[in-house]
Amino acid sequence: MPVPHLSTALNGPILDLENRIINAMPTIEHWIRGKWREYTVPFYCSVDLRNSGFKLAPVDTNLFPGGFNNLNPDFIPLCVQAMMNAIDKICPDTHSLLLIPENHTRNIFYLQNIATLQNIMQRAGLYVRIGTLLPEVTTAIDIDLLDGQSIRLEPITRKDNQLSVANFEPCAVLLNNDLSTGIPEILQNLHQIVIPPLHAGWATRRKSNHFAAYDRIALEFANLIDIDPWLINPRFSSCGEINFHEKQGEECVAAAVDRILSVIRKKYQQYGVKEDPFVIVKADSGTYGMGIMTVKDGSEIYKLNRRQRNKMAVVKEGLQVSHVLVQEGVYTFETINQAVAEPVIYMIDRHVVGGFYRVHTGRGIDENLNAPGMHFVPLAFETTCLEPSASQSNFIPNRFYAYGVVARLALLAAALELQQTDTSEVELSTDQTPA
Amino acid sequence: MPVPHLSTALNGPILDLENRIINAMPTIEHWIRGKWREYTVPFYCSVDLRNSGFKLAPVDTNLFPGGFNNLNPDFIPLCVQAMMNAIDKICPDTHSLLLIPENHTRNIFYLQNIATLQNIMQRAGLYVRIGTLLPEVTTAIDIDLLDGQSIRLEPITRKDNQLSVANFEPCAVLLNNDLSTGIPEILQNLHQIVIPPLHAGWATRRKSNHFAAYDRIALEFANLIDIDPWLINPRFSSCGEINFHEKQGEECVAAAVDRILSVIRKKYQQYGVKEDPFVIVKADSGTYGMGIMTVKDGSEIYKLNRRQRNKMAVVKEGLQVSHVLVQEGVYTFETINQAVAEPVIYMIDRHVVGGFYRVHTGRGIDENLNAPGMHFVPLAFETTCLEPSASQSNFIPNRFYAYGVVARLALLAAALELQQTDTSEVELSTDQTPA
Repeated sequence: MPVPHLSTALNGPILDLENRIINAMPTIEHWIRGKWREYTVPFYCSVDLRNSGFKLAPVDTNLFPGGFNNLNPDFIPLCVQAMMNAIDKICPDTHSLLLIPENHTRNIFYLQNIATLQNIMQRAGLYVRIGTLLPEVTTAIDIDLLDGQSIRLEPITRKDNQLSVANFEPCAVLLNNDLSTGIPEILQNLHQIVIPPLHAGWATRRKSNHFAAYDRIALEFANLIDIDPWLINPRFSSCGEINFHEKQGEECVAAAVDRILSVIRKKYQQYGVKEDPFVIVKADSGTYGMGIMTVKDGSEIYKLNRRQRNKMAVVKEGLQVSHVLVQEGVYTFETINQAVAEPVIYMIDRHVVGGFYRVHTGRGIDENLNAPGMHFVPLAFETTCLEPSASQSNFIPNRFYAYGVVARLALLAAALELQQTDTSEVELSTDQTPA
Repeated sequence: MPVPHLSTALNGPILDLENRIINAMPTIEHWIRGKWREYTVPFYCSVDLRNSGFKLAPVDTNLFPGGFNNLNPDFIPLCVQAMMNAIDKICPDTHSLLLIPENHTRNIFYLQNIATLQNIMQRAGLYVRIGTLLPEVTTAIDIDLLDGQSIRLEPITRKDNQLSVANFEPCAVLLNNDLSTGIPEILQNLHQIVIPPLHAGWATRRKSNHFAAYDRIALEFANLIDIDPWLINPRFSSCGEINFHEKQGEECVAAAVDRILSVIRKKYQQYGVKEDPFVIVKADSGTYGMGIMTVKDGSEIYKLNRRQRNKMAVVKEGLQVSHVLVQEGVYTFETINQAVAEPVIYMIDRHVVGGFYRVHTGRGIDENLNAPGMHFVPLAFETTCLEPSASQSNFIPNRFYAYGVVARLALLAAALELQQTDTSEVELSTDQTPA
């Protein structure tokens, strides 16, 4: 496993931000601990960060993380320990769980993620079986993985509002399926606990709600350690009633782009940043890096060609884009062997359990790295995010600690977002008592 | 760091025991989770195990562990994560803590332990200062450690039943001092939270209470996974009103030795064990391996010479032995490069965070390895105790998982013991709500 070489300029303002984070460590940890008494922590989460040297910010928060297989295997024990805490919060009596993955049977990397997740949960003391939503799977199938192990997908049965697979009555259902195509009937009104809650899925979730929550968290955090909140927070705006095919709603998007660009320009001036500001326009729901583009002027929105319009109009599984998020672009100045790299941080319960770089050789520093057809190289972090050292300021684990802190701000935002968007009359499926 | 080579016979009954533990993993983890809803988990704990190939059992449970410096530095993140959980339970508002160590200023290894502990707590987000009970320390002193770091010991001030060091008002006091010489006045009736609680110290604690609690836990566990409880539990008895100098109370000890030897003989016969049974006689309170001897016949007790009597009569810091524990001896058949080795497991909160081997070249397989003047070599475990694999039965991490399980049984016993011996009218210092 090569050591990720970080070519981020180590003398610019980012070092100052990192130093502030390292020096405020007990204050930060204490503040985060307090927050988890207010909010229900999501079961698991991954956060894409961008580090531009002058700014370190989350750009995407995934509540159904799909890359556990990319973590450094040396840190699986951290996952197991955190999983033990996570399980305690679902329902302390849980010891059998049905894991429902995405409907991929040929994406071997994704299935490796499911196998890793199953492995972590087994080591934390759970019986875990994998039930698929694919209607064509009518008997259990075993799929061989690259590491010599295999994974078994089983058909799900619903009876009396309880899901089961053959001879296995799970007391909880864990989704690793982001519900992009809506909430399947089989998952509705279950008596079992479902985690994450259904409203965390892309059927209803909106990125703009997440980043609105992040605004609040980032502002409070920035006040806590006395920094400009912009240093950890990308500006954003959202537009509804969009139809890219019919050029409907373009004015809102173009105006938002220009408004955000003008904010960035001022900030770049203030911090002496010489780069060109840019903005990312992406679907307000959905994942897999579809329906996403880089824009440097509002007028570009009116000039999209047919191919670009098609690309923006649909996301995963053909879902139509009707709301978009217009978000300040954050350069990624981290490179590994000249390739652009973006850190992805993984969390279970409230614990950072590892991360990896998404490294892409064919993309620029102002482009989204999680794109369809993208062949990213996952490069596991060599150290954990738990080993900051106040006495060694240029110490690489310090950068990772800062990454872990900003990722946890996004996790807090996700918790707040889920609390605010919860429309169920029953209680949340995870309990809210302090751990 | 060399890989510990385990020469334990891998085909004997211990493998069967290990297999039962591995195969019952979810059942075991679920049962342990349930137990932590009944009991308050000790803040930290280390357990000495003995593995005789046919038997795997705890022989000593330390509630003030002093070897954090011996753990594999690669697993410090596990300690940090577990510490975050431990802190949450003390009082969620804690973010400053006074650590009170043993009164050693020249035992550099012990001070390295304190530095490691301080480091772990800082990374978990605590401000930690170290206050010493040594009356001669009237201003802060810095002591250089072997790793180039240093440690600062400060004099403690007591005012309004609150302890502090210069300009630092801690909200909790963490003891790494086992109170062998009694509970100093300065620690009595404090308004601050004191962890572990004072009755965990050797001023009042008795090993016989611990092993009585362990009896209950081991029996329940043995029923859970359907094994003979003897395989994980050393027989014991205790005698009071002992005075080794005046040959007082010898009959009780001699009779207990013979009674236990006869039980062991029957068990050895049942399991086809060819070794000579032996018994350990040790002080019922106190640590540091003082006041301890190996006996193979009750009559030996009457024939102790003056030197042996002196050795048994006092423990650490000159404390008189008046109660003894008579405990079944468990052979240690683990060796590393021909030297006898004993595994020591470390826990923070309810999590196993690592361990090391106490390796001693000058001692036999039926002797206590934690002896005064002993120069043991700590050899950090290469893997954690969190990575069992049901599919690889001769896999070394499986042995470590079994070690982690048995150590946690001792931790549960310590929790039960502390609950039963708590005579305070106020609530325990750690809260009892499920985590």
